[in-house]
Amino acid sequence: MPRYRMTVEYDGTDYVGWQRQDNGRSVQGGLEAAAFRIAGEKVTIKGAGRTDSGVHAEGQVVHLDLAREWTPFTLLNALNAHLRLARERIAVVDVAVVADDFDARFSALKRHYLYRILNRRAHAALLRKRVWWVPKPLDHEAMHEAAQRLVGHHDFTTFRSVQCQAKSPVRTLDRLDVTRDGDFIEIRASAQSFLHNQIRSFAGTLKLAGEGKMSADDVTAALEARDRSACGPVAPPEGLYFMKVDYPGD
Amino acid sequence: MPRYRMTVEYDGTDYVGWQRQDNGRSVQGGLEAAAFRIAGEKVTIKGAGRTDSGVHAEGQVVHLDLAREWTPFTLLNALNAHLRLARERIAVVDVAVVADDFDARFSALKRHYLYRILNRRAHAALLRKRVWWVPKPLDHEAMHEAAQRLVGHHDFTTFRSVQCQAKSPVRTLDRLDVTRDGDFIEIRASAQSFLHNQIRSFAGTLKLAGEGKMSADDVTAALEARDRSACGPVAPPEGLYFMKVDYPGD
Repeated sequence: MPRYRMTVEYDGTDYVGWQRQDNGRSVQGGLEAAAFRIAGEKVTIKGAGRTDSGVHAEGQVVHLDLAREWTPFTLLNALNAHLRLARERIAVVDVAVVADDFDARFSALKRHYLYRILNRRAHAALLRKRVWWVPKPLDHEAMHEAAQRLVGHHDFTTFRSVQCQAKSPVRTLDRLDVTRDGDFIEIRASAQSFLHNQIRSFAGTLKLAGEGKMSADDVTAALEARDRSACGPVAPPEGLYFMKVDYPGD
Repeated sequence: MPRYRMTVEYDGTDYVGWQRQDNGRSVQGGLEAAAFRIAGEKVTIKGAGRTDSGVHAEGQVVHLDLAREWTPFTLLNALNAHLRLARERIAVVDVAVVADDFDARFSALKRHYLYRILNRRAHAALLRKRVWWVPKPLDHEAMHEAAQRLVGHHDFTTFRSVQCQAKSPVRTLDRLDVTRDGDFIEIRASAQSFLHNQIRSFAGTLKLAGEGKMSADDVTAALEARDRSACGPVAPPEGLYFMKVDYPGD
């Protein structure tokens, strides 16, 4: 059975999240239904990362096996035709044939996320549900300085959901950059893997740093506390985008 | 009565267009309702440009007169609070007090629009209703070359809707640039004023140039024909954004 790697874009607003669940539409379920319609067989699709309800993706990566051989071009077009028919907010933007041992989740070397804040007095009209609206001015340089305290190999207990199922709270954060582009503040996070709600926990805490309510030293202290209650309020899902995954040989 | 100039952003998807009409929600009507709620008086709001249903704005400019004096900050916050309560897809992003003779429409020196095409095999998931999806590859350089044939002082009969109410089809087009940014093709148009459907007519015709179905000389011939039937199919509204208006003294 040939294995396919696909890059997937979605608007997470109306989904319960990436993962198939009983309580509503999931991105995984939408993709699997499209694959079933073209392949006539039940297909399991595995993703590189589980995104929560409301979280978006420009570059989620998934893999699936299909009995029939498809050219990437035909598979992309067929899946997208069914996704449009089913009124899913999902698009398959790239397809490639890969080796049988490729695994979207376990082969991943690095995951890249973007968190977008709209920082102006007026709420978002065009980007409603696409950004976190923070009306009070944020100091993005203070946010970036505080963010650097989180980069590296740490126990991130403070910054993970109490529901996080990972065995270890230790991760290596490769990058946490904060930049401003006009009214937008962009937080870019890269690591091999993240804990549940880790980036939204970072964003919520960095917002406090941007308001002057936490110093960079306070952020270090929060990290070292290894205590969930030391985290700022978790930022809402609508600002978060799963952007890209790196694999060996890319 | 003090006069206020406001910059307005909106998602045009669910509106009948800028102008108040009997058949549905308009941007003008949404803004006037918000102004009525804060001022307790019937207010007429005039815009710099009438956008069609589905057309978006990052920088529509409007003016209105209110009996009471407001600080710009308070007026912006009060209007936005009512726009959010009414679930409008409109945001007032800037307010200024202006002279009594300022007119959003008649004082305008130049209007700037952006037309966005998503040019890739996969449809838009995140930018659904925000771009024109054209799956076949377009040659943006050929589009730009053809566009230059339209810049200048011309009779634009070919490129205006048969419903256009302007007395003259003659306009001066200052800029029509086509650039590519990854999968996006951006058409930027600037002029003191535009005819009805002029930019969407340009976009539809330039798409044919990008497909190799029209040469730059064909576009010149279409312009010189002064015949609506020489225009390519009009591009859909969802790719069009009213970006900015220039006024004296800005």
